[in-house]
This record gives sequence, structure tokens and C-alpha cells, in this order.
Amino acid sequence: MLLKRWLVGDPLKTTQAKHERLSKTIALAVFSSNAISSVAYGTEEILLVLILAGTAALSWSIPVSLAILFLVLVLTISYRQIIYEYPDGGGAYVVAKTNLGERPALVAAAALMIDYILTVAVSIAAGVAAITSAIPGLYAHRVSLGLLAIVFIVIINLRGVRESGKFFAIPTYFGLVSLSLLILVGAPNTFFGPSSPLTASAEPSEQAMESLTLFLILRSFAAGCSTVTGMEVISNGVKSFRPPESKNAAVTMLWMSTILASLFMGISWMAYSYHIVPKSEETVVSQLARLTFGTGTMYYAIQTGTMILLILAANSAFAGFPHLASILAKDGFMPHQMATFGDRLVFSNGIMVLGFFACLLLVVFEGDTHALIPLYAIGVFISFTLSQAGMVKRWLTKKGAHWRKKLAVNGIGACTTGIASVIIASTKFLQGAWIVFLLITVLIIMFQGIRSHYKAVAEQIALDRRGARPPLPNRNIVLIPIGGVNRAVIRAVDFARSRPGDIRAVYVETDPEESAKVKILWAQWGCGIHLVVLSSPYRSVLGSLIEYIEEILEKHRDTWVTVVIPEILPARWWQNILHNQRALMLKAALLFKERVVLTDIPFHLTR
Amino acid sequence: MLLKRWLVGDPLKTTQAKHERLSKTIALAVFSSNAISSVAYGTEEILLVLILAGTAALSWSIPVSLAILFLVLVLTISYRQIIYEYPDGGGAYVVAKTNLGERPALVAAAALMIDYILTVAVSIAAGVAAITSAIPGLYAHRVSLGLLAIVFIVIINLRGVRESGKFFAIPTYFGLVSLSLLILVGAPNTFFGPSSPLTASAEPSEQAMESLTLFLILRSFAAGCSTVTGMEVISNGVKSFRPPESKNAAVTMLWMSTILASLFMGISWMAYSYHIVPKSEETVVSQLARLTFGTGTMYYAIQTGTMILLILAANSAFAGFPHLASILAKDGFMPHQMATFGDRLVFSNGIMVLGFFACLLLVVFEGDTHALIPLYAIGVFISFTLSQAGMVKRWLTKKGAHWRKKLAVNGIGACTTGIASVIIASTKFLQGAWIVFLLITVLIIMFQGIRSHYKAVAEQIALDRRGARPPLPNRNIVLIPIGGVNRAVIRAVDFARSRPGDIRAVYVETDPEESAKVKILWAQWGCGIHLVVLSSPYRSVLGSLIEYIEEILEKHRDTWVTVVIPEILPARWWQNILHNQRALMLKAALLFKERVVLTDIPFHLTR
Repeated sequence: MLLKRWLVGDPLKTTQAKHERLSKTIALAVFSSNAISSVAYGTEEILLVLILAGTAALSWSIPVSLAILFLVLVLTISYRQIIYEYPDGGGAYVVAKTNLGERPALVAAAALMIDYILTVAVSIAAGVAAITSAIPGLYAHRVSLGLLAIVFIVIINLRGVRESGKFFAIPTYFGLVSLSLLILVGAPNTFFGPSSPLTASAEPSEQAMESLTLFLILRSFAAGCSTVTGMEVISNGVKSFRPPESKNAAVTMLWMSTILASLFMGISWMAYSYHIVPKSEETVVSQLARLTFGTGTMYYAIQTGTMILLILAANSAFAGFPHLASILAKDGFMPHQMATFGDRLVFSNGIMVLGFFACLLLVVFEGDTHALIPLYAIGVFISFTLSQAGMVKRWLTKKGAHWRKKLAVNGIGACTTGIASVIIASTKFLQGAWIVFLLITVLIIMFQGIRSHYKAVAEQIALDRRGARPPLPNRNIVLIPIGGVNRAVIRAVDFARSRPGDIRAVYVETDPEESAKVKILWAQWGCGIHLVVLSSPYRSVLGSLIEYIEEILEKHRDTWVTVVIPEILPARWWQNILHNQRALMLKAALLFKERVVLTDIPFHLTR
Repeated sequence: MLLKRWLVGDPLKTTQAKHERLSKTIALAVFSSNAISSVAYGTEEILLVLILAGTAALSWSIPVSLAILFLVLVLTISYRQIIYEYPDGGGAYVVAKTNLGERPALVAAAALMIDYILTVAVSIAAGVAAITSAIPGLYAHRVSLGLLAIVFIVIINLRGVRESGKFFAIPTYFGLVSLSLLILVGAPNTFFGPSSPLTASAEPSEQAMESLTLFLILRSFAAGCSTVTGMEVISNGVKSFRPPESKNAAVTMLWMSTILASLFMGISWMAYSYHIVPKSEETVVSQLARLTFGTGTMYYAIQTGTMILLILAANSAFAGFPHLASILAKDGFMPHQMATFGDRLVFSNGIMVLGFFACLLLVVFEGDTHALIPLYAIGVFISFTLSQAGMVKRWLTKKGAHWRKKLAVNGIGACTTGIASVIIASTKFLQGAWIVFLLITVLIIMFQGIRSHYKAVAEQIALDRRGARPPLPNRNIVLIPIGGVNRAVIRAVDFARSRPGDIRAVYVETDPEESAKVKILWAQWGCGIHLVVLSSPYRSVLGSLIEYIEEILEKHRDTWVTVVIPEILPARWWQNILHNQRALMLKAALLFKERVVLTDIPFHLTR
């Protein structure tokens, strides 16, 4: 408990919740790192597909990047409309639920959940790649480094959302500035001649493995779509902004998109101008930084900045995922625990679940960004499409001021993201996107299973309308299982004796000698309470006891059986392993029997 | 439970214990595989040290092997005396305890425990090496193969000792026969000319890395000492033999030593005659088998036989370790659970512990026999020395018939094993034997810590000599924590109402609206029982409840607080994760409070 307090801080009062709101500058750090950090791998993933058709095909990166720029533009405009329309937070799930119905909403929720987990895994993997580009010796430890980073972020997030905002603001801005410097210094260089030798162009040109087909170009577009993931995060978290929430969120969205677009196009342009060829051991950004500044302080600053930005991008998902889980939990689609605030007013359970699955992915895919990319983006585009479609339906139904203009905006949004979704799904399907579709199906089945269970429970525990109380057993047989006669047992016996009833001590004989001793002691200490001695040919004390209790339950259909367990509790937790775990096993075995009441009488050791 | 039954079989009655005794032929299979299987790596380990001084030094293997042969002889004669003197099982722990006192006994016990675990790890690693010598493609999977083998042996052993004897007898004898054939056919060949081309002698001679010093020869002797490990197993398990136990055990010991000595000297001789050079990718036995029979059916039979023998050698430790653990547990040096027979009359807990640690070692040392060897043998030689020294002390104190002759035998045994111990410890110390000494110290501290805890507990729960009963609180306040009003709560209320007392329902308010609803329902259903509403500014329902209970305990020093918990129990186990784990957490938090009695009132869901 002390450890927990030290790690996550003191509990906060409910009334403090309001003060946990974020200013625009801090919100930009918390919510935008997800989207912006994608520039670290977006261009690279485009090039990695095009290179399959040889180095000549790399020039296609410019039109592909422009197509993605168009996506950024469309998404910015259409999401600003969602932010104003849903000031309480307009995630794809909420928009789809209120406009399209339950089924599409669950699809959106499942898609988003998977993408949150992937965001953490991909960002951490890419962040670690930024380090290992600079320090190749760490490459072998990339999975451990990634896991450490996730654990660190989980702990920070359990401390609460504002504090993590403050905690992350300075490093996030450091990352933004360092990447901006790369573009501001590097991009003009491409026009006015390089400031450092262009070693990259000296590389031998790669052998073409595939021919440059439309399919390949579409695949590179699909890979590049990973750049726009995370643009929806602000619309989910409008409530975290200071009032006026919608306006602040919309402004922050505009800032974020501008930065994202500039950095992405800058990097794509530089990579194109310098004829950068993607390498497995060094990232494109690292190559560009080396070309622009040489391997000096500025290079390391940029690598560190990129790394920080990516590691913090994972943090962005830690704000979104628990929020989504809690909304689902309130609707009964996720376990109720997910809806509960932890001590620190954050959704602790959601944070832990997200951290766990991200770690799992990182281990399974061995910390390789490129291996994770085929699974990525598809979930987010499904939810983009569903929320845009939901808005289209909304304007058609609700109308209101300027509804035609708004309809057009979201209509374009829906079409664009829909087309992108189809491209991503079809080009990536066999490479791994099928796993995502499978998982979405599994999640939806799980959501519905959970809700139907909660419904069934609610029906079963509902009170009778006519006020009738369910009948209860009217007898009570009290059993005290004993393994010997000692202070702890005497304490339990005296507790049981303090109220009248049918009380029996039960002893299971495994050794006749031992048994004789117990009987003599019982005659002296048992206060006349009947001692039942069970024989146990199988040496299973537990089995004999349970059999005896089952017999009573069957013979007397109208009685409770109260099992009073004398429990010896050690002074230190580790001493528990030194005591027979019988009490625990007995309780576990009896918990699921009807009409059995378990009562623990503690006997505390002091040393 | 069904799975457990299917895996380990039906429980056995206590009276069946006697029938679990082993005949000599089955006992030879169960107890001797440990010692005999060492021939698979004994010669190889000698050669691996000598090769450091170049191929010419390999001829030293013959004198070193003869020294080890002498060890086998001494151990056989002296252990036969222990078997007759300790018919109830004379492990080093028992011999040292009864003759030398507690401290030496604990040293012996700790040393043996570590060596049992190493026996399993080393044997499994060497067994897997026999397979991968024949099928090099499996080399990459050696750790997984080893783990699988351990799990398999654990399951077999949980089924009971006689069944595992029967289960292992045929394969053990298959292994013995196949290795014997290798010697019977191969050894004469060395005199009468080879039956197949001697490819081994065509190998380029190795570069000498060290000069041939006395230290190196002693090191090779120390490495070869791994051959005699396991010779003590029979003396630990005399009780498992059919009556007359001692005589049968002594005869079996003689058989075992004869087989061990013949196989070991045969392999050493053949390796010397054929100028075998140890290789990392193929075992010495595999090379000899190839030279003798070519890579045909016989070769594969010998590899399989060796592998089986080694895998089964691990089984031998599974008979010894739990036995030792149970003896220690009876003396209070290990947790009481270790002393308990499982359902199948075997020491289930000891088996699981041994299996776990062996798996751990296998993973840490990456399934490499040679890496494990420096840790091996030292423990067993410490226990050899202590038990021989114990016997010396015994004859000096007890005297009796022929005591001078017996004293001489054990005296020679003590000196020989003592000198070997010093050689092993000094030559292997820096290579890893220090870990063993460290672990022995840690284990001894653990043994003593456990016993002093049990002593403290016994004192604390001891009954008062004058028959005085400890005073008990004379009031009882019954609290029913509720999270709402439903059938499960009503059931708990009605149970509590059935006996008179101070009964209060406790509700923690997190949302005033919800709270108002609960109050209205309580007025209708609460039967006049007082409803305490606690406010929870920190949203921590659990925290508020516990605080309230602590207040009562502090205010009323003379009362029990009975907490009646209405518990909703789902129809299926996995549904448990869908219900707030509050009841469980509440119980965990309250279990350690004095004067708090926990009572569960179950409410069973049917779907």
C-alpha cells in the first residue's frame, strides 16, 4: 500500500475532478503526440513499400504523401464539426451509437480499442528504433527497452491525467521543436545545396523485386495512412479541456493538424530530394538528421526528441483507451470495474489492461515497428468512417443551421475515409489485417456476452414487485472443523457457543494415535460440544469434510450450514506459506455451495 | 479436478501404502538410473578438461578414470554399511543428525537438495544432447525439449511411486542393455582391430591452450566425479524396498555399482583407444556408437537408450527429493505441507518444487550440460563426506560387533570423499561452485528460520496449563455492507435478523442521486434495521467501509464486529471477473483485523 501511494500519489477528492482539466498548451502535448509522432515512421513506411519496385519508384512518395496530406485536411475539418456537436466527448462509439445504432457503435468501439493497443505498441517500437539508430549496440535489447518504457508510462498515468499532462508537456515540446528544426534547416537546404555530404545518394541502387503496379502504389498509400492515426484522440477527450471545452478543443485540433502536415510533408520532401533509401538498421529520420546536421549534438537532440515524442505518443492512448472502456462499461458492454474511478480519478483498470496488451504485442512482434504496421491503421479508419457516416445521418435527421454545408463536409469525410479503409483493408488483408477483423468480431461477441450476462443478473437479483421476501432456511447447523485443540480453536468454539444452536466440532482422523489425543483434549476443553470424528481413508482431510457437509445439506433441506473456521493469521505476510493452506482451500470449495455460510474467526499471532 | 484425476489417477487408501513397495529389479530401475546414466557425460567431462592441454593430454583420462573407479568401490562398500545400519532410510541428513548433530545435518540436507535439483537439470540436458547428437536439427529446441521432459516426469511421479517404477523399468533396462552392447561389442574391437573406419583419428589435433599441470589433472578428476553422483540414492530409499529391506537394498546397490563401473571404464577405454576428441555438437558416446556400429539402427538404438536412461535418471531425484523434504518438514525445517502425502501417497508438494527449480535451471543455463557441471557434484560430495564422518563417529561411540572393521571401512570412505570434496571445491570454486556454497548457506538460514517460526507459533497457540480460557469480547455488532437493495442483500439481512443483536446496514455514498434511491428502497425492505450512510469524498467505497469498521473497533474495545457480506456467485467461474471484486478485496482487507468476523452469505445465480 505504501509502495502504491509512493508510486501513484495520494488519493484525490471527487470535488477535485474539475481541476484536473487541461489548458490548450498542455492538451496539445497530451493529445497530439499520438498523431504528430507518426511522422517518425509514416514516410518510412511509404518508402519501404515503394522500394520493392526499385529505387526509381521512390519518387512516387511525393504523390502518395500529397494524398495523405489531403486526408489530414479532410479529417481536420470534419472532426472539428464533431467536437462542436459532441462537447461531452464524441468518440466514434458515441457518434455511431447516437446516430447509427448499437451494432455499428460496437464495431467502432472494437476497432478503436484494438487501435489504441497498437498505437502503444507501434509508438514504443518506433521510439526504441530511434534510440537504436543512434546507438546500434542497444538493438539486441529493444524488447526490454520497450517494456520498460510501457511500465514507466503506466505508472505515470496511474498518477492522474493532469499531472501526466504537466509531466509530458516539456519533453513533448522538446520533441516538436527538434523535429521542426530538422525541417526548417533541412528543407531549404534541398534547394540551396546540401550543408553536408550526401552519403545516401552513394548507396548502390536496390534491385527491383516487384514491378510498379497500381496495387503497389495503393499499398504504399495504405502504409502511409499510419500517419493520420491518432487524429481522433482530441474528439474523444473534449471533456478534459478547460471550458469552453469545444472551442479550446477545436483550436487545439487545428494546431495539431498544421504541425502534423508540415512535419510530414517536410520529411517526405527531404527524403525525396536526398534520394533516401530506407534501411532496416537506421530510420529515415535518423538518416535525414545525419545528412542535415552531421553526427553531432543536433543529431542526437533530434533522435532523442523523436524518441521522446514517440514514447509519449503511447501516453496519448492511455488517455483515450480507459475513457472508451469506461463509456462501454457504463453501457454494460465491459466489466463494471472499468467504469470505476480509481483513487486518483483515473480509470486505473483500463490503464492496466492497455499496458498489459501493449506489452504482449511488443513481445510477440519482437519490438519491430515494420512488423506491426500491417495490423495498424485499419481499426482507426473503420472508426473514422463510422463516425463520419454517423454525422451524415445526424445532419439528415436533425438538420439545424447550415446543415447542408455541414452535411457536405462530413459527407466528403465519410467518402474519403471509406475509400481509404477499403484500400487499407484490401492491400493489407493477407499481411495481417485479417487478424484485426477477427479480433473485432471476437470483441463484439464479448461485448454482447457481457451485456447479456449483466441483464440476466439484474433479473435474478431484482426485488419482488409485490414486496414478497424470498423464503430462507429456518435452521442453522454450526460446524467447527478442527485439526487439533489449541487457543485458536478454543476461540472459535467460544465464539460459536455465544449464541444458541446445533453446534458440532468436526475432526478428520488420519492417524488413530493423534486422534486419541484430540479426543482426550476435547473432553477437557470442548465445553460439551459434540465432536464428530470422520475417518479419511484417502488422507484427504478436505475431501472428508466437504463430503460430510454435503451429506448434511442433502439430509436437511431446510437448514443453513455455518462453517466456523478458526484461522491462524501470522504476523508477517510471508509466513502464510508456512501454514497449511487448508482454510483457504476449504473456503474456496465451500463458497460455491448454496446454504453454506462461511465464518472466519481470526487468531492473530504476534510474532 | 477431473483433469487432475485423469492425469494422476484415483486417490489411494492409506492401507495401500505397504503395497507400493518395490521389488529389486524395479528398484534397480528406479534408483540406479541416476548413478548409471552419468556414464553418458562422465568420460566426456574428463576429456573436455584435458583437451585444454592439447590432444596429447587425453591419455591422462585412463589414470583419472581409475581414480574414479576407486571412488566407486569405496562408496559401494561404505554405503552398504549405512544401508544395514539405517533400514528406515539413511540419507546423509539422518546419518549426520543422529551422529554429528543438527548443524552438520542441515549442511548435508542443503547440499543434497541442491544436488537433487542439479541432477534433474544435468540429466535432462545430457539426455536432450543425446537426441540432438543424432538429430542436429533439434539443437535449437533443446530447452523446450528439456522442459517438456521435466513436465512429463512430474506428471508420472504424481501418479505414485510404484506405478512410476513399473512405468520406467522397461525403458531403463532398454537403456542399460543398449549401452552394455556398445561396450561388449566395442571394447573387444579396440584389441582385435576396428570393424568400421576410424574417422575420429583423422581429426586435426587441437591446439593446446593450457599446459598439463597437476591442477588441470585434478580439475579433470573433479569433472569426472559427476560420474559417481546418485550412488547415495538407494541408501535414502531403503524403506521403498520390499522386506527384508536392508538386504534387498544392499544387493541392489552391488548390482548398480558393478554396472556403473563396467560401463564407465568401458567408455573411457574406448574413448582412449579411438583417440576420441570431445566436440560441442556431438557427445562422446554418440561418436563411439557411430565408430562401432556405423550410423544405422544400432546407433539410433544406443542414442535412444542413452537418452531414455538420462531422462529417467531425473526421475530418480524425484523419488529422493520429496522424501528428504518430508523428513525435514517433520523436523520443522520445511513447510508442514511438504510432510503431507498427496492423494496418491506421494509427496506431491516436493515433486512440484523439484520440477519447478529444475525447469528454472534448465532455462537459465540454456540446456547446456557442460555449463551446469561446475555446480554439480560438490553438493553430493559434501553429503558423502558428512555421512561417512557420521558413521565413523557412530562406530566410535556405539562400537558393537566388528566395529573396528566397520570403522576402517567408513574411515577410508570419509577420507576418500573428503579429499575428493576438497579437490572439487578448490578446482571448481571460481567456475561456479561458489554459487552452491552460497545457496547452502541460504538454505540453512531458511531451515532455521522456518523452525523458529513454527516454535513461536506453537507457543502462541498452546493451551493454558491451568485450563483458563482466553477472554473473549462480549458484544457483537453486525454490519451488512450494501451497494444497493436487491435479493442478495435481502437474503443477507434476513440471515442476520434471525438472531438478536446490534445490526446495521452500511452504504457508501458516491452519488447523491443513487443514495436517495437506496434510502427509499431501504425504508420499504430494510425491516427497520438502521442504515448507516457513509460519505466517500475519495470515491473509495472500500476505504470508507474499513475506516468505519476501524472506528467501531477503537470505540468499543469489547466487541466483535461481524461483517455479513452478501455475495453474488455467478453460475460459471469466468463470470466472476464481471462482478466487482469488492467483496474479495473487503475480505482480504479485514482478514487481518482482530475481533473482525467475516461471514459470507452466498446468493447463487442460476444463469
